[in-house]
Amino acid sequence: MSILVQKYGGSSVADEQKIQQVAERVVAAKRQGRDLVVVVSAMGKTTDQLLAQARRIHPDPPRRELDMLTSVGERISMALLSMAIQRLGFDAISFTGSQSGIITNDRHSDARIIEVRPFRLQDELCRGRIVIVAGFQGMSYRREITTLGRGGSDTTAVALAAALGAECEIYGDVDGVYSADPKVVREARHIPGLGYPEMQELAEHGARVLNAAAVEFAKERDIAIFVKRTDGQGSQTVVRRFSPAAPGQVVGLAHERSVRVVATQGEGRDALLAFLDERGIPGKQLSVYRFRDAPEGVGAAVVVSREFLEDAAPFRVALEERFGAHAFLDAELGAVSLIGAGINQSFRALRRALGVLAEAGIEPAGLHTSSFRITALVPGARLDEAVSRLHRAFIEERGAPEDAC
Amino acid sequence: MSILVQKYGGSSVADEQKIQQVAERVVAAKRQGRDLVVVVSAMGKTTDQLLAQARRIHPDPPRRELDMLTSVGERISMALLSMAIQRLGFDAISFTGSQSGIITNDRHSDARIIEVRPFRLQDELCRGRIVIVAGFQGMSYRREITTLGRGGSDTTAVALAAALGAECEIYGDVDGVYSADPKVVREARHIPGLGYPEMQELAEHGARVLNAAAVEFAKERDIAIFVKRTDGQGSQTVVRRFSPAAPGQVVGLAHERSVRVVATQGEGRDALLAFLDERGIPGKQLSVYRFRDAPEGVGAAVVVSREFLEDAAPFRVALEERFGAHAFLDAELGAVSLIGAGINQSFRALRRALGVLAEAGIEPAGLHTSSFRITALVPGARLDEAVSRLHRAFIEERGAPEDAC
Repeated sequence: MSILVQKYGGSSVADEQKIQQVAERVVAAKRQGRDLVVVVSAMGKTTDQLLAQARRIHPDPPRRELDMLTSVGERISMALLSMAIQRLGFDAISFTGSQSGIITNDRHSDARIIEVRPFRLQDELCRGRIVIVAGFQGMSYRREITTLGRGGSDTTAVALAAALGAECEIYGDVDGVYSADPKVVREARHIPGLGYPEMQELAEHGARVLNAAAVEFAKERDIAIFVKRTDGQGSQTVVRRFSPAAPGQVVGLAHERSVRVVATQGEGRDALLAFLDERGIPGKQLSVYRFRDAPEGVGAAVVVSREFLEDAAPFRVALEERFGAHAFLDAELGAVSLIGAGINQSFRALRRALGVLAEAGIEPAGLHTSSFRITALVPGARLDEAVSRLHRAFIEERGAPEDAC
Repeated sequence: MSILVQKYGGSSVADEQKIQQVAERVVAAKRQGRDLVVVVSAMGKTTDQLLAQARRIHPDPPRRELDMLTSVGERISMALLSMAIQRLGFDAISFTGSQSGIITNDRHSDARIIEVRPFRLQDELCRGRIVIVAGFQGMSYRREITTLGRGGSDTTAVALAAALGAECEIYGDVDGVYSADPKVVREARHIPGLGYPEMQELAEHGARVLNAAAVEFAKERDIAIFVKRTDGQGSQTVVRRFSPAAPGQVVGLAHERSVRVVATQGEGRDALLAFLDERGIPGKQLSVYRFRDAPEGVGAAVVVSREFLEDAAPFRVALEERFGAHAFLDAELGAVSLIGAGINQSFRALRRALGVLAEAGIEPAGLHTSSFRITALVPGARLDEAVSRLHRAFIEERGAPEDAC
């Protein structure tokens, strides 16, 4: 039995016509003799709309109920896709996350898959049926409905592929991973192959094409992921264990349009971390550095993605109540990241990046590095320019990989 | 432990503001020391919208997938209501039908509750929590999600009340049951108390205030149902074993705005019944009578509610292909029913009804009676007039009950 897991994202199933197109693609793969498990996200903006509705009712909605609410989005898509496939004369059956045997821990709204028991799926595949699965959700060992956090449908697909010994295809708007967001950098280049760590860094720092936790899962189970365009046009990117890139080579850039920095002065570090934990706000990066607008003497600073701080006003009020003038939330910044294994073995890449930004008169408000990444925080209004200039220097004009590091 | 089951219908939770109002009413009952189980329907027109979406994708959507789809409506309401109650500072927890232990047969889209195992609900009530339950849905013994058919949330509420030994309140737009639809008959009178059979007949023949299957359930378990207005204003109707009405008295009128009659000529009866079964269309009434527009010599005629024949055009084509000129689907008719225990012990009520209609020049296209009911099929355009005239004769002008029968 050659099983193929396909995952279709929210924009691939955004309306009824697109669901019918997905049904046709699924049926085409079935005709080629594959056993198919199809994981779907919620249609278009469904999840956002449900979240907004919840926030109008409760400023800080209880997470268990939030999971009850948001898990319906994928259930709508899965039922409609199953109907569309049956309409084409093929046998299909849909399953929720819990029916699919996706067992998670009980961290609501950001649960982690701890086990997959895909027995019902295997039974239905044996019967020749196309199996549709609601992505993004599972059931905790307490029998509660959980969700996996943003982009969790990718994780569902990879976890099922691992449990079923299947290949995994992730379908979306673009035909794979690019060296930068093509909407920002017209010269962005298609990347045919990537290692897991580079893909994780790209995903964690703003590339939307694949979910970082899913890549982590694929890495653990050694599952190759094929990133493709929903309509089958264009090329593809294979994400797998071995990176085809040379050490020190920058494979791509990622950016985040809007990050915030929450900082305290002096001794406030532990209190600040507790303050963020109380609100369920995870930090991307914790560090000590100075801002131009900050009071003299800087304590801890935590970089927070905007998705966790959509509504900054009440947060700012609470921060001031707790810390007075000793803590602050900065203006909106952008983050641009250069990704490549071994790019920080020397400071050459970092120095070159700082030079490129300085030429444009962009002074970074912060810098972070890891063994795979250099990230610069820049004023939001200059972000696109910073991405374009760094892309030109590190991708378009690069010579042999040795020159880059 | 004095448990109260409250059910709020779709219009009571139609938007976020109404959900907040329901939360306030629930909390008010909790403050009075009641242990509360709250059953909710889908918000407003959610279920209709989901059904329409399914039909755009598949002309005859597979019922299992339809249940997967439509069951999300109540899940949205339950999560939002739980959030709204928690926002008011009270502890609440929501459960789907299957989590609530509502076990059904596997007749998808029209499942029947066969057992209720409300263990999780009882646990949470013991912890002092307000329990919210998604109405209209359950889980089959095959572990599939099922739905209970239109108005099924009433049945959920009554079944839970029976299993928990609780009282049952059904909240909606009106403060109970009226002697006719107040939108059609301004003189309609409030009915303070009704027996189960009269309520069932009213519900089955068009009164929307309470679901007929729920009343059947209440009758089996001898649960009193209190029908109230969501905002608590006005009066209430108690539905219970003993009717306060005198035998032979017409307690109320129900009407259906649009019924269809499918008829065959001659020997086609069994073929017609098979034809309807293939399409999952239940008949309200099977009988032999003649239509003015029918070909000479009439065979079987089946009365079908419009909800089962929304899209008549393809049905008409299929009917003609199978039966040629020997079967037909009539124009849209209306049905008006007089309800009262023992009203057919003589033909007096029927004759009087025919006289009232004849005075207005309305000739019934069909007549049915049961021991609790007289139904006349009348041209759709004359329905409101027929209801008003019969209401005047049997309710407004009635003398002592003896006179009516």
